[in-house]
Amino acid sequence: MSKDLEKIYVIKIGGNVINDPEKLAAFLAKVASTKGRKIVVHGGGKLVNQLADKLGIVQQMVNGRRITDTETLELTAMIYAGLINKKIVATLQANGCNAIGLSGADGNSILAQKRPVGEIDFGWVGDVKEINTLLINQLLSAGITPVFCSITHNAQGQLLNTNADTIASTVATALAATQPVRLVYCFEKKGVLADINDDNSLITSINPEKYTQLLADGIVADGMIPKLENAFAAIAKGVQAVTICNDNDIVEILENAPDYGTTLTK
Amino acid sequence: MSKDLEKIYVIKIGGNVINDPEKLAAFLAKVASTKGRKIVVHGGGKLVNQLADKLGIVQQMVNGRRITDTETLELTAMIYAGLINKKIVATLQANGCNAIGLSGADGNSILAQKRPVGEIDFGWVGDVKEINTLLINQLLSAGITPVFCSITHNAQGQLLNTNADTIASTVATALAATQPVRLVYCFEKKGVLADINDDNSLITSINPEKYTQLLADGIVADGMIPKLENAFAAIAKGVQAVTICNDNDIVEILENAPDYGTTLTK
Repeated sequence: MSKDLEKIYVIKIGGNVINDPEKLAAFLAKVASTKGRKIVVHGGGKLVNQLADKLGIVQQMVNGRRITDTETLELTAMIYAGLINKKIVATLQANGCNAIGLSGADGNSILAQKRPVGEIDFGWVGDVKEINTLLINQLLSAGITPVFCSITHNAQGQLLNTNADTIASTVATALAATQPVRLVYCFEKKGVLADINDDNSLITSINPEKYTQLLADGIVADGMIPKLENAFAAIAKGVQAVTICNDNDIVEILENAPDYGTTLTK
Repeated sequence: MSKDLEKIYVIKIGGNVINDPEKLAAFLAKVASTKGRKIVVHGGGKLVNQLADKLGIVQQMVNGRRITDTETLELTAMIYAGLINKKIVATLQANGCNAIGLSGADGNSILAQKRPVGEIDFGWVGDVKEINTLLINQLLSAGITPVFCSITHNAQGQLLNTNADTIASTVATALAATQPVRLVYCFEKKGVLADINDDNSLITSINPEKYTQLLADGIVADGMIPKLENAFAAIAKGVQAVTICNDNDIVEILENAPDYGTTLTK
């Protein structure tokens, strides 16, 4: 009798949780309490800006996007791969979850290339080229939870700063080629809301037709549009479903409880 | 026909090399060029002090030893586990060596306990309790080179600062229980010198009898004594040999060329 392959959950931690040690500890305890294969992905919240301020390193922003100069890249390596990643791993370990922290350089897990200079030179920003699914599957098979920070490398000795949402979606789509994968984006809201001021107006599921209608009705707007576009792109590349939810609801999401978060499907 | 188990080399990088990006790159290219199973261990050189100075975090020292308060622990996590560890891993990858960076929290690779408060309270300093040889052997078998920074954890969510020389020796002795291990400490000199001002006066091998004589003759003195005591302690615990050498000579050491470094044996 063949058994269905167990789903892998790829979980992106919300930036607001990264910024709050108590919330982060509570979130990680919840993640650790759930069984099954999972991968955690995180960025750095506000800590890089705070450290840059203290050190007098001016953060160049163009159209609201950070330019990663050499000094800023070093700060991101310190904060993402050092401080935050190791705190997350140590906290997961304390909760009985055998985690291992990874940048893209570690085990060549995420190969990237420096973003070509166009109208804007983003500096040391990396676009993902290849995910080392062999290594990730080996770790998962050994019962280990990989924890990816948003640092990659180009295999020529250069570290690169890569968006954490992108890491989550590229890891999920790469793994989805051979097994069922669900992608979970945590953020400060309960999910996609019909009325942004009413937490009880959660829309629990969206397929492409419904998305088209929500767009036409102006219910999905602003910052939610790229989130949903990226989610549907991941689904088009083979991810089973993408859930957008609040960090507080992670146990329910991982246990497939209904009525939590917004789940996007084909 | 049985085949002897291939030796594992545990290599502690010299602090002077960590401080110098060009020397570090050259050293890592050499390490990567040699075949065989190896583990790299590093501390942080002067970078923690430099960052502490910039941030106005006063480093408390007692009898020349650093006290690791909470702010300093965060700096060590940033510098050791973040910036330096990821630069080393990316550079090894660029030279064709599949490295993976680890703190003791990662995969629960090094479990430590906070040093009990005696006459001095060293703060968040960890004494090693247990090495996860299963994980290390799995990585080595997969052709991966573990790169340990000098951060450990207590399995209760607390990161701890642990001396890199101690990490190197405890990893080496733990692995030596089941296979041949050599421990290599790199530093600024060619090895133990009969005349500290003459680089040509290298003593290439020392056993316990010779060590007693060198001590009596005053040839081994000062900072070299704890280095050699620790080395003989590792040998007593099963490490085949310990070599103290200059970072420049690492290829010759790993290829067992004679007349490089000082090798200590039973």
